[in-house]
Amino acid sequence: MTLRDVAELAGVSSRTVSNVVNGYANVTERTRLRVQQAVDQLGYRPNVLARNLARGRSGQIAVVVPYLDTPYFSELLQGIIRAARVQGYNVLIDQTDGDREHERMLINHGSSRLLFDGVIFSPLGLSQQALADRDPDLPLVVLGERVSDGTFDHVGIDDVTASRQATEHLLDLGRTRLAAIGDQPYETGEAAQLRTRGFREAHERRGLPVREDLVIGTPRFNRVDGAGAMAHLLDRDDPPDAVFCYSDLVALGAIHTLVGRGLRVPEDVAVIGYDDIEDGRYSNPPVTTISPDKEMIATTAVERLLLRIGSATAPPGLELRAPHRLVVRESTAGRRAG
Amino acid sequence: MTLRDVAELAGVSSRTVSNVVNGYANVTERTRLRVQQAVDQLGYRPNVLARNLARGRSGQIAVVVPYLDTPYFSELLQGIIRAARVQGYNVLIDQTDGDREHERMLINHGSSRLLFDGVIFSPLGLSQQALADRDPDLPLVVLGERVSDGTFDHVGIDDVTASRQATEHLLDLGRTRLAAIGDQPYETGEAAQLRTRGFREAHERRGLPVREDLVIGTPRFNRVDGAGAMAHLLDRDDPPDAVFCYSDLVALGAIHTLVGRGLRVPEDVAVIGYDDIEDGRYSNPPVTTISPDKEMIATTAVERLLLRIGSATAPPGLELRAPHRLVVRESTAGRRAG
Repeated sequence: MTLRDVAELAGVSSRTVSNVVNGYANVTERTRLRVQQAVDQLGYRPNVLARNLARGRSGQIAVVVPYLDTPYFSELLQGIIRAARVQGYNVLIDQTDGDREHERMLINHGSSRLLFDGVIFSPLGLSQQALADRDPDLPLVVLGERVSDGTFDHVGIDDVTASRQATEHLLDLGRTRLAAIGDQPYETGEAAQLRTRGFREAHERRGLPVREDLVIGTPRFNRVDGAGAMAHLLDRDDPPDAVFCYSDLVALGAIHTLVGRGLRVPEDVAVIGYDDIEDGRYSNPPVTTISPDKEMIATTAVERLLLRIGSATAPPGLELRAPHRLVVRESTAGRRAG
Repeated sequence: MTLRDVAELAGVSSRTVSNVVNGYANVTERTRLRVQQAVDQLGYRPNVLARNLARGRSGQIAVVVPYLDTPYFSELLQGIIRAARVQGYNVLIDQTDGDREHERMLINHGSSRLLFDGVIFSPLGLSQQALADRDPDLPLVVLGERVSDGTFDHVGIDDVTASRQATEHLLDLGRTRLAAIGDQPYETGEAAQLRTRGFREAHERRGLPVREDLVIGTPRFNRVDGAGAMAHLLDRDDPPDAVFCYSDLVALGAIHTLVGRGLRVPEDVAVIGYDDIEDGRYSNPPVTTISPDKEMIATTAVERLLLRIGSATAPPGLELRAPHRLVVRESTAGRRAG
């Protein structure tokens, strides 16, 4: 099914069909109707990629994430790809491994403009300042724990509040020795620091001291980090009776260690995660978590990026907050049947 | 650190530095040495993307997979990205959702050649014939359950043998009512059919009949498919005492249902998966599985693709088999401590 088939049926030239399909003005209303009828009758769908190339745009947006094997990003990408396809955009994905130079190249290098019309970017290695020093003409939407400086949009949830609520949930269960797994007290660990701040706020509000020896740092938010940190915590004289994990993967690793040592979750140790990935819904026990509205984050990021791509002058950068909720499952709230 | 800094230190023009870095011949040996010393002293690394664009190549390869949220593909992608980066190639990833038209566009449309020098492709919607009808100039390496027609390379494991071994493992445990979850008896279900064939072969070799009513089809290889199929199997009068799942995700879904119904894994029902994803190593119980050598698949795919990209005449398409092994864990082999 090609442009030529449509042209033949409508009795016009291929160029006329192209003009109609692309919405150009130089076509009479009568011709437009005739072409549209032929398009409908044949079920013709224009090749968006070819059309965009002719217009001097790639028709592609790039999504740049630190790690593709992190289920949180994989799930977010589903929503981004869906939202972009509806608008005729193809999505290309790049993984940075959190490498600072690779990230810098992506937001600075003019030649990448041949490939992408804009970038949805989840930085890990780059600081806030390095983000500000980027190519100013590149349409950019940032995910994760950064703050908009007014030149790009930032989409995320309120991590401090969410982390405070997660911690309050553990305190509400009557637990008294709370651990936190995932702190990263250095420049590029901003995401982790927001969660630690929420953990502290929950304690402060109840007038309880934070058990500083139970706040454990991890290099990443993976299963192996959670498993190792939990083993470390269990070797203490006075181990925790509840753990706030900074991701569901960390929680799954922590549970793996607990079960392996013959401890019961949640009876002996309650475990809460963060991200609401599918793994945590099917694990044994299923994991209580903070659930960000990923669909909202994805569609908002795509909408804002396409707005930037389509604007002659760059719109002001906004801080956009997606909602989140606490999802209580068996890892804190009881025992499953069986 | 730019080309200009190197030029200044070496006392030559930027163009001369560029010629040296790109390996062009029009530079004297003495100048080459001087530039190389300045490059080493400053730790300058040339911008590969810009260099490749100047050469009329994008320096990018595309990896096209059906679903990014499948951990098997995410893990494979890690190896592909690593192997490509070592060769100075950037990797762009595209998700097709298994959509036949999207897949066809990617391997047929000339305009995509502006973006990629070649494609590593895991088809789902496209049949073997549609693969053969592609743009013949596009360097292509295929993953998954297809067969090379001599014009592209295919990298995979021996799925029939691996599936036979998985089934034999269950029979060796003395189990007698074996179920299989994941069959797809239609044109694009070739991957699933190879696994069913291995399941049958194991029975035939022992002179045992296949319990046809326990071979369950699923639309995908996900947790939700495994959970639903397992529920269906447990509602039989004569439920299985062992299950061969066509992916680890299916196995995790099946275990979720078994635990929810108060059954013990493996005492009541032994469960084996396929893919050896990280989730299965940390689950409760950990999942016995077929482990493909993903690192070998990834590096072989990249090597063959770059060979094709660099060849003036296309090399013959090869069938390349990566090794696999059976990894026995608690979901078939016993009870964990605790």
